[in-house]
Amino acid sequence: MVRFNLLIIAASAITSMVSASVWPLPKEQSLGDQVAWLDGRVKFNVKYGPAGNSPTYKYTRDALTSRITRRKTSKKGQAETRIDAAIDRAKSFLYNDNLVPWMFHKKGTDWQPHYDRKTAITIKTISVTQTEVEPDNSKDEPIDESYTLTISKINDREAKVEIVGKTSVGVLHGLTSLPQLFYATDDKKKIYTPYLPVTITDSPRFSHRGLNLDVARSFYPVKNIKSLIDVLSWNKMNILHIHITESQSWPLEIRSMPDLAAKGAYTKDQIYSVRDIDDIYSYAALRGIKVIIEIDMPGHTASIAYSRPELIANFNKQPWVGFCAQPPCGQFKLDSPVVDKFVEELFADLLPRLKASGAGYFHAGGDEYNSNSAQFDETVGSNDSTIVVPKLNRFVNKVHKEIFDAGFTPIAWEEMLLEYPLTLDPRVIIQAWIDNESVKKIVDKGHRVIFGNYKNWYLDCGFGFWLDVKPESFNQLAPAFTDYCSPMKNWKAIYYYDALEGIPKDKLNLVLGGEVHMWSEQVDGQILDARVWPRASAAAEVLWSWNREESGEYRTQLSVTPRLALIRERMVARGVQASLVTQGWCLQNPGDCQY
Amino acid sequence: MVRFNLLIIAASAITSMVSASVWPLPKEQSLGDQVAWLDGRVKFNVKYGPAGNSPTYKYTRDALTSRITRRKTSKKGQAETRIDAAIDRAKSFLYNDNLVPWMFHKKGTDWQPHYDRKTAITIKTISVTQTEVEPDNSKDEPIDESYTLTISKINDREAKVEIVGKTSVGVLHGLTSLPQLFYATDDKKKIYTPYLPVTITDSPRFSHRGLNLDVARSFYPVKNIKSLIDVLSWNKMNILHIHITESQSWPLEIRSMPDLAAKGAYTKDQIYSVRDIDDIYSYAALRGIKVIIEIDMPGHTASIAYSRPELIANFNKQPWVGFCAQPPCGQFKLDSPVVDKFVEELFADLLPRLKASGAGYFHAGGDEYNSNSAQFDETVGSNDSTIVVPKLNRFVNKVHKEIFDAGFTPIAWEEMLLEYPLTLDPRVIIQAWIDNESVKKIVDKGHRVIFGNYKNWYLDCGFGFWLDVKPESFNQLAPAFTDYCSPMKNWKAIYYYDALEGIPKDKLNLVLGGEVHMWSEQVDGQILDARVWPRASAAAEVLWSWNREESGEYRTQLSVTPRLALIRERMVARGVQASLVTQGWCLQNPGDCQY
Repeated sequence: MVRFNLLIIAASAITSMVSASVWPLPKEQSLGDQVAWLDGRVKFNVKYGPAGNSPTYKYTRDALTSRITRRKTSKKGQAETRIDAAIDRAKSFLYNDNLVPWMFHKKGTDWQPHYDRKTAITIKTISVTQTEVEPDNSKDEPIDESYTLTISKINDREAKVEIVGKTSVGVLHGLTSLPQLFYATDDKKKIYTPYLPVTITDSPRFSHRGLNLDVARSFYPVKNIKSLIDVLSWNKMNILHIHITESQSWPLEIRSMPDLAAKGAYTKDQIYSVRDIDDIYSYAALRGIKVIIEIDMPGHTASIAYSRPELIANFNKQPWVGFCAQPPCGQFKLDSPVVDKFVEELFADLLPRLKASGAGYFHAGGDEYNSNSAQFDETVGSNDSTIVVPKLNRFVNKVHKEIFDAGFTPIAWEEMLLEYPLTLDPRVIIQAWIDNESVKKIVDKGHRVIFGNYKNWYLDCGFGFWLDVKPESFNQLAPAFTDYCSPMKNWKAIYYYDALEGIPKDKLNLVLGGEVHMWSEQVDGQILDARVWPRASAAAEVLWSWNREESGEYRTQLSVTPRLALIRERMVARGVQASLVTQGWCLQNPGDCQY
Repeated sequence: MVRFNLLIIAASAITSMVSASVWPLPKEQSLGDQVAWLDGRVKFNVKYGPAGNSPTYKYTRDALTSRITRRKTSKKGQAETRIDAAIDRAKSFLYNDNLVPWMFHKKGTDWQPHYDRKTAITIKTISVTQTEVEPDNSKDEPIDESYTLTISKINDREAKVEIVGKTSVGVLHGLTSLPQLFYATDDKKKIYTPYLPVTITDSPRFSHRGLNLDVARSFYPVKNIKSLIDVLSWNKMNILHIHITESQSWPLEIRSMPDLAAKGAYTKDQIYSVRDIDDIYSYAALRGIKVIIEIDMPGHTASIAYSRPELIANFNKQPWVGFCAQPPCGQFKLDSPVVDKFVEELFADLLPRLKASGAGYFHAGGDEYNSNSAQFDETVGSNDSTIVVPKLNRFVNKVHKEIFDAGFTPIAWEEMLLEYPLTLDPRVIIQAWIDNESVKKIVDKGHRVIFGNYKNWYLDCGFGFWLDVKPESFNQLAPAFTDYCSPMKNWKAIYYYDALEGIPKDKLNLVLGGEVHMWSEQVDGQILDARVWPRASAAAEVLWSWNREESGEYRTQLSVTPRLALIRERMVARGVQASLVTQGWCLQNPGDCQY
């Protein structure tokens, strides 16, 4: 098969205006220009993977010993369950998206296919096949996410769809692509694909494709998180990093330490229960998404002081500037047996549960530890790096060892490795957030890295200065009242970002992928959709199929804009209040809105 | 009564953390610290205005003669209908807002009042009174919008509410303030006000308090517009300016010219019918809001070319830079009998209908007329101002005369008066959008003015460059891809804006008020709430009660932030997906998040 990185633009009037519709752009695809219609009589055929697919287990933990007991609860394995759920979703999207792509056609043209009973080609079967034994999805190694998707004629009146993946996640991605190839007629009575025949051979550029959601500065109800997981999966992202505790609140129930959330959460209704967390992991797993919980430490822990003031140094120091990145200040005492014991007990409660939920990674934070605040930590008593760094080194390595011992790979923010710097276990994955130079330094040190710097991939930037400006600071900040990372990162800043700048070829394997970041100083569930989508979709394409042609040139905006606008409409059709890419006229008249 | 511009902060534990809760801040208010409870047995007493209140009419128009026939259709006058509707809404908000103000109280404090059957003070009656004859709301003059609101004890166990306004709109504002004084207990079982006794004496600083919504670059379903009207009224704004046609689309049905919308709208489902427009006017009138329709001309008219190409010069000129502000170019031929006739016919169809719907103002646009494009207009054939200006002067004055003749006051964008400049009828109201200097120049010329410049009051700014950047322009615009008016105007940029800078005292009466602007290149109904609210609330307070203390100092952010955050929560409680002002911790700990 000839390899096409760019869509073959079909010549017919029907499809000439519709851009390739699978987002993120598949690695290889060939789209035809014939119409195939879908009616309710299509038959789904499923072949699960070979025997040996992992079954579904229920885990229970003994409260005293913390020992986990595993019990098989379903005849269907996890892979089968995932495939079945993906088929159910694909069916729902195929029949309910009802997306009429009017904005991708010139005003006044007759672009819509007309159904003709006598000649219409109808899709008869949709076959879904997993070909290999399901790997262990919780291991710290990439799984095969590739799939193929074909829509081809059986005869002059009939067509078939075939989706094949090696793993259930590959199959799931194929089932995610499928409904993106279909539209509704404007009377909403018929569903069709204008792309027959279709051949897609697809696999991701990066194995780590994530979004980091801060649920502690603002609390997000579980339904918001599930909705976010849905949309991540439509964009073939596979990681939801939940920054679950912060100095502002501790919304995480820890059963052995009930006061942590009872006193640290904003309210009693803003707590993630043990059941909620398990629910989130299961919901995500069914959608091919791994959840990574982050408990940020030793900084960003002030909310623990509401229940355990003895653990926290410099709590809510005022004036705070110089002692933390934002109020309230407060960080773990670095060299304290009480803190050590607290972390051990916390992990003993939390980590086995997360393991049982299928987690393989745990994020222990490590950003913005403040040496100036360490002066007020009686276990440090200095901001001198020769005193601070060894104590930080001890603490962080102890934490990481406990995470390894619980069967997880730890993730740490870049400052731990680069700023202090600490000597970390080489297996620790480092998350960069400052700039491209950080990514380079991290791989130079031999660590695996997750990129996503604040100048490009922080979704919170540019919405203005949210601290209360004192009258004496007024003239300095007025009239724009911009935040530190203004301007807002629109989809172009996110898309046209060379995350691999300066990385030598022999180190590329250390770059696992990236995450966009949704910090929540000025966001909560009310506006999550509008802030995240479709900007995170731009990141999703960078992570799945990169942002450059094979020639090395960036994909042109003329080729990306309409595709992004289309997936935005697809998300809207499914109830997501995503932001608008551009006005309809510019989509109706591609090329006429260039600068 | 002592005059308080600032809330009297009550000393009790219950109210000490709750900031004044009526937004925009009333002119004078005194709030106590006792709790009064509301149950379902409260009685509403209504006294309408004296006899002579304007009855409700139905208007019909003879298709041939355009003559309007007026028929009284209701025993209740418009004022009575407005008051009744406002009472219904107030009841609904009082009982359904269910706002629990947890975020305005320090974590862990017992701030919620406890209901005690034996001692509770219960509200027995809510009296609503209009005292004067209702003025004609469609006249080009301010109406009295003042009201008083008191909540006072009848005896040790009973209290009453009294709302008094001279006009139905004043009464309506009182009924808008009332539910903002009430909260729900966190079990949602009881509703209370912690502010007993309450005395509010309120009236607006400016008579024109508006928002301009562009419904032509993106189409907004009528339900979005109605929802916007609702929220405007909660913020005591009284003007919805609808920028209803643009170069991108013509979504307005004109019955005598059906091809205009049939060919000029994005799709047949994206058209405002005659009935829709009347419906919007009626819906707004019930909420004390005047609708001002704008048909922008002579620029911004390219969409007319889809049905009447002969009227439009330089349609979709490419490359467009230098010939219009954004694609597609296209403006009325300036000195054309066909254009003159078109405008006459358009107005003959539209204006009597708007008049019948109660409109008093009509906006004929006038921004960004492009002299360079005039070279390609065969009725001008030059970009020389000695040729362009007289022709522009003729056209615009003819248009304004037709608007006056139809019984409206015309509104024009500032360029017509300042940039060319034209000689306009002194009764024409000028809308400034460029800077404060414009406002000063406009009043210097003796015209009334509406302010709201793009550096402060454009809600569309800062969301990034939406045109497709060509590869050759890439390096110039990357990596930030900012738009011309970046950064985004957060609520502080909107609030702390001295719109009266440099205006002499004797000209202040010419400043009618202002409008925030929601241009729709990157917005549609999906995200309207998040883009508009609560930033437009900041403008609403500037327009209702100004942004300065009597001392002349700006109100401090410490005093504004929690109040804005509270009205945001109130809007959210009513289903509006408004953006977050700041994270909960900063509201729980006022003063600790200062810079």
